[in-house]
Amino acid sequence: MRETEVRVGIVGATGYSGRELIRILSRHERVSLTYLARSPEGLKNRVETRSAGSEPRFHRLPVLPYEADACVSQCDVVFVALPSGSSGQIAAELWARGLVVIDLSGDLRLPTDKYEVWYGKPPAPKEAQETAVYGLTEFNRPLIRAARLIANPGCYATCATLALYPLIQGGLYAPNTTIVVDAKSGVSGAGRTPTQNTHFPELAGNFYAYRVGRHQHTPEIEQSLRLSDGSIILTTQLLPVARGIYVTAYVKVEKTCSIDEIDACFHRVYDSEPFIRLLPPGEIPELKHVLGTNLCTIGFHLHPNQGVLQVFSVIDNLMKGAAGQAVQNLNVIQGWPETTGLEQEWPFYP
Amino acid sequence: MRETEVRVGIVGATGYSGRELIRILSRHERVSLTYLARSPEGLKNRVETRSAGSEPRFHRLPVLPYEADACVSQCDVVFVALPSGSSGQIAAELWARGLVVIDLSGDLRLPTDKYEVWYGKPPAPKEAQETAVYGLTEFNRPLIRAARLIANPGCYATCATLALYPLIQGGLYAPNTTIVVDAKSGVSGAGRTPTQNTHFPELAGNFYAYRVGRHQHTPEIEQSLRLSDGSIILTTQLLPVARGIYVTAYVKVEKTCSIDEIDACFHRVYDSEPFIRLLPPGEIPELKHVLGTNLCTIGFHLHPNQGVLQVFSVIDNLMKGAAGQAVQNLNVIQGWPETTGLEQEWPFYP
Amino acid sequence: MRETEVRVGIVGATGYSGRELIRILSRHERVSLTYLARSPEGLKNRVETRSAGSEPRFHRLPVLPYEADACVSQCDVVFVALPSGSSGQIAAELWARGLVVIDLSGDLRLPTDKYEVWYGKPPAPKEAQETAVYGLTEFNRPLIRAARLIANPGCYATCATLALYPLIQGGLYAPNTTIVVDAKSGVSGAGRTPTQNTHFPELAGNFYAYRVGRHQHTPEIEQSLRLSDGSIILTTQLLPVARGIYVTAYVKVEKTCSIDEIDACFHRVYDSEPFIRLLPPGEIPELKHVLGTNLCTIGFHLHPNQGVLQVFSVIDNLMKGAAGQAVQNLNVIQGWPETTGLEQEWPFYP
Amino acid sequence: MRETEVRVGIVGATGYSGRELIRILSRHERVSLTYLARSPEGLKNRVETRSAGSEPRFHRLPVLPYEADACVSQCDVVFVALPSGSSGQIAAELWARGLVVIDLSGDLRLPTDKYEVWYGKPPAPKEAQETAVYGLTEFNRPLIRAARLIANPGCYATCATLALYPLIQGGLYAPNTTIVVDAKSGVSGAGRTPTQNTHFPELAGNFYAYRVGRHQHTPEIEQSLRLSDGSIILTTQLLPVARGIYVTAYVKVEKTCSIDEIDACFHRVYDSEPFIRLLPPGEIPELKHVLGTNLCTIGFHLHPNQGVLQVFSVIDNLMKGAAGQAVQNLNVIQGWPETTGLEQEWPFYP
Repeated sequence: MRETEVRVGIVGATGYSGRELIRILSRHERVSLTYLARSPEGLKNRVETRSAGSEPRFHRLPVLPYEADACVSQCDVVFVALPSGSSGQIAAELWARGLVVIDLSGDLRLPTDKYEVWYGKPPAPKEAQETAVYGLTEFNRPLIRAARLIANPGCYATCATLALYPLIQGGLYAPNTTIVVDAKSGVSGAGRTPTQNTHFPELAGNFYAYRVGRHQHTPEIEQSLRLSDGSIILTTQLLPVARGIYVTAYVKVEKTCSIDEIDACFHRVYDSEPFIRLLPPGEIPELKHVLGTNLCTIGFHLHPNQGVLQVFSVIDNLMKGAAGQAVQNLNVIQGWPETTGLEQEWPFYP
Repeated sequence: MRETEVRVGIVGATGYSGRELIRILSRHERVSLTYLARSPEGLKNRVETRSAGSEPRFHRLPVLPYEADACVSQCDVVFVALPSGSSGQIAAELWARGLVVIDLSGDLRLPTDKYEVWYGKPPAPKEAQETAVYGLTEFNRPLIRAARLIANPGCYATCATLALYPLIQGGLYAPNTTIVVDAKSGVSGAGRTPTQNTHFPELAGNFYAYRVGRHQHTPEIEQSLRLSDGSIILTTQLLPVARGIYVTAYVKVEKTCSIDEIDACFHRVYDSEPFIRLLPPGEIPELKHVLGTNLCTIGFHLHPNQGVLQVFSVIDNLMKGAAGQAVQNLNVIQGWPETTGLEQEWPFYP
Repeated sequence: MRETEVRVGIVGATGYSGRELIRILSRHERVSLTYLARSPEGLKNRVETRSAGSEPRFHRLPVLPYEADACVSQCDVVFVALPSGSSGQIAAELWARGLVVIDLSGDLRLPTDKYEVWYGKPPAPKEAQETAVYGLTEFNRPLIRAARLIANPGCYATCATLALYPLIQGGLYAPNTTIVVDAKSGVSGAGRTPTQNTHFPELAGNFYAYRVGRHQHTPEIEQSLRLSDGSIILTTQLLPVARGIYVTAYVKVEKTCSIDEIDACFHRVYDSEPFIRLLPPGEIPELKHVLGTNLCTIGFHLHPNQGVLQVFSVIDNLMKGAAGQAVQNLNVIQGWPETTGLEQEWPFYP
Repeated sequence: MRETEVRVGIVGATGYSGRELIRILSRHERVSLTYLARSPEGLKNRVETRSAGSEPRFHRLPVLPYEADACVSQCDVVFVALPSGSSGQIAAELWARGLVVIDLSGDLRLPTDKYEVWYGKPPAPKEAQETAVYGLTEFNRPLIRAARLIANPGCYATCATLALYPLIQGGLYAPNTTIVVDAKSGVSGAGRTPTQNTHFPELAGNFYAYRVGRHQHTPEIEQSLRLSDGSIILTTQLLPVARGIYVTAYVKVEKTCSIDEIDACFHRVYDSEPFIRLLPPGEIPELKHVLGTNLCTIGFHLHPNQGVLQVFSVIDNLMKGAAGQAVQNLNVIQGWPETTGLEQEWPFYP
């Protein structure tokens, strides 16, 4: 038996992020999983059917229909990992009732007006949205440390922001130029509900862009980079793999800027970060170098004649892009070593 | 412009078998595609959405909601490729109104009583079921030639029957022993409707058996091999690939039986068959050796000490296992060369 | 038996492009396959081993070690599909001896000096290189018609040039701006020789960029678009699929340029092309919409505030990107209908 | 810093089993990784190239060419994970020099005469082979506890033996009948050296049997089940996935045998096992239910009329089938809790 310090619940425990949270937290030495709930809408019945006889049965905890009272009484901290549109409401409610809440949906990340434009759904309560701290850990530790409500970043936004922020902070980005973020994602990013688009025979051997010009992570990236609207062109594309995000970004840099300067700039920002790995100039990351870990690996290549820097960035969308970063934020809030429960440094490979 | 002789329709044109029929028939020199319909239930709306801007638009024919009158007036021959339970009803109706009908579902393959047990659905009209000729072309040409209503075989049943029939007909099978058919199928065999089981992230990198002991192709194989009930143990398993069926069968053979005898037996039955390829003893087929073709490739290996013959058999489930064999049957009915429209002998590979 | 007009050979018949040529030509009504050879270096022994018992045996033609005399005496036209570095030499020799030659390698596409820089190999004979006509059919028909030596375009170059040329020809491209071509390719583009990088367990579930800043198709695209050196940033990336190329291009367009103008521009150039499909503005192609066909499908999306046009373009790398376009060029040279042998319009899907 | 008790080395650290050992051991609280070596033949240079810039650099330990002296001086325990033929030699040498050695190859599993027949290679020193304890942990704990040289079981053998042993021990297996083991494996089972067969474009979308009738795990299974030669027909088949083994076994059982009896028999043997999960009768495991874990999940289905029991068994071939079981054996030898370092119970899924 491990010594447990904090009682943790998961609302949305049957989705991919919820399951990944269980995978991480069942080995996290400082927490005790005390409450697992599915979506209140019960749309996960379908999901449950198939795995009924498998993993859940072997776990000590049943997955219950969500009830706020049960959740509040059994948890100190709760992760809410429901679809956008309902997640923020529940996160706000649980926060209002005193829990520490980490919301993995997009509901608390954008100001209400932008949320309505990009998500097309009724926004979460304004107070919760305004209070929520954006949980891109590397750039927001002081606020996260004091927070009781976290808006955990989107997977594309995490991968792109980590790739680009040092350039902007370091003044290497040529101001007012358009940054192209050509991003590719594994299918688990689309969630666990089956659709025509994610039907196996359609996607096997396939690849395509979707939501071109209107993906909701676009304003999230601009906001987290402190750039004005329209600075980013984000292309989101579906890879025929289960996991991982690969970002290829194209950034105009100051003409005089050398590869050594760029390298130094990235190292300045990231050298003390436990989850960021910088490759030497010219080396390119692979998607599978991070699967199963909370790492983000970054490489870059300068086209000096064109004044364009290519930045390559990879994460596991369910780890650093969702559940892993959520646990990282929990560790920061609790004052635990940031890598607790996230020690796995060798990828699940092959 | 090709000279057209026969007006052909497809009911169920948006499913995988329906689309494969279009792929074949759009290059078949003797037919003209005159009518494409989707399921009357309109459940294909979902399907249509995604490809709206792609292939269908480039085809001259619209895909209409099914109407019997339109179908009858515009076609001489119709392929019905709807889900079991509704396909046989429509096939029976169109046949009663004078069309030549090839039904790709399981609805007309089994006697009514067996159908009800294994499919658990209301059976098609008894007269149609009793009239329908089982369309495993290689073993049923005389009846097919005269038929106006075809029950096109199931994909597993085609692959297993082609692997086993020569042994039974040739008297090499040890009577009253159990034949094990360990079969693996690509996911397109499950149809185009998305489900949790066929959601990409669940199946990518996965493999599992399903409907163990109760797959509806079991009695179809026993019937087409003229074996008594319970002779076959059929295991159906899902491969994380879009197409293809791979059968590994284990058959008790007479102890005295040599590999040369077995080889001769297969050659006797198949040497004049345009779509069957026999490998020399000991060579093993690969799934991708037949993709995109109407071929069935068969190999075998004798375990003499155990008196067990392993037979390996592969087909493309949408070709020889569905649309290809359906066109082969059309060719037989019309008295055309059996390979018309099915000339592709080199697989789609890699 | 088909009436044969032209005797055709393939040197490099065991590689992926060679096999695809056989797949196409075995159904091409105007040619007769008379000669198949493997690489003179015999490096294909490895390849042959595995499929020894399968397809090749079923084809009437043996695959011989290459000999120029045999090739010259048995063919009118020959496709040379060997690795860059040896392909151009053999193509030049066969052309000098009077055959019509279509070379699928990169050896004859670039001027000698550029070839040496980007390929790092000894160039093909200068006369052959200078005589060879670049076979991007859509933009070079008059020259192709009269040619006896074709430099068949690269797969990435075909896909990118078809996406971009109308914008440049139509004056919509903002001159002297950098065009980003973010390209993704199936693994068959890397050829049939096994390497660590293309070992199945490494690539399954993986994705990564390679040869960043130094892919040899970069100058080929610039040349075919008539742009100056350095106009293109080409990123080549490996998709975990067997086939297909997907190009996402980002082009600065004149600020005043509307989506209707762009649409009209593409239609002006492509409306009479049998193998180009334009999607309506905002619709995005999928990789699997073209597999098994010689088609190129193009879609685009305008970001008006940024003055950036995204163009999406897909081809089957072994068809329009190699063997298919090679046959298209043969058809042009011979004065046959350009779609002969390439009639398949429905993709191999799913 | 963890408290370290035992210094551990890996010879063969760049292969798949070696890397998986690093993945496990870097989180194992009782060991310290002190020595990593590649094959003495240096054939792994190829492997190293590609990942040079990625994981190895981030690990504190360099991967050295193997030298016995260095290994002996720096380790208490060593895992040898080299290809069969060279692994056993090195294991024997290190054991003779006093180390505790766990050999993951097939070299020490079979008596010398059988080894020569099935492996066709020079056998390891006889004394080492005869001393080595077969490390199928569940059935051999007393001997393992006292061992200093372990022959770690093969992946197929582990999966099949765990599926079948209770039936034999419990007297439910009908003696002298042939057991069919239809097994499917992910490609990492073939190791990290690229071959034509494991080239991505050949295997993607493919499936096939290999080494039919002559797979070297056949006698290993018979031996570990204490059955006479020829009792098992093992079919090994390659799945287009990176990881996992799926066994479908067909066993003749005593006619009177009920499903409850079978269920009870399995539970008797496995109820106290930390890594075996039994599914209720009729439930079927999936490959992905165990990936990334050291678990073996077993399900079964009785065909009472035929007297045939189907047993389904899944493992991760690199975990319970190789590195995981090797660490489990280390734990037993050291007297540590058997799950140390192997606590992950939730699969890497999706």
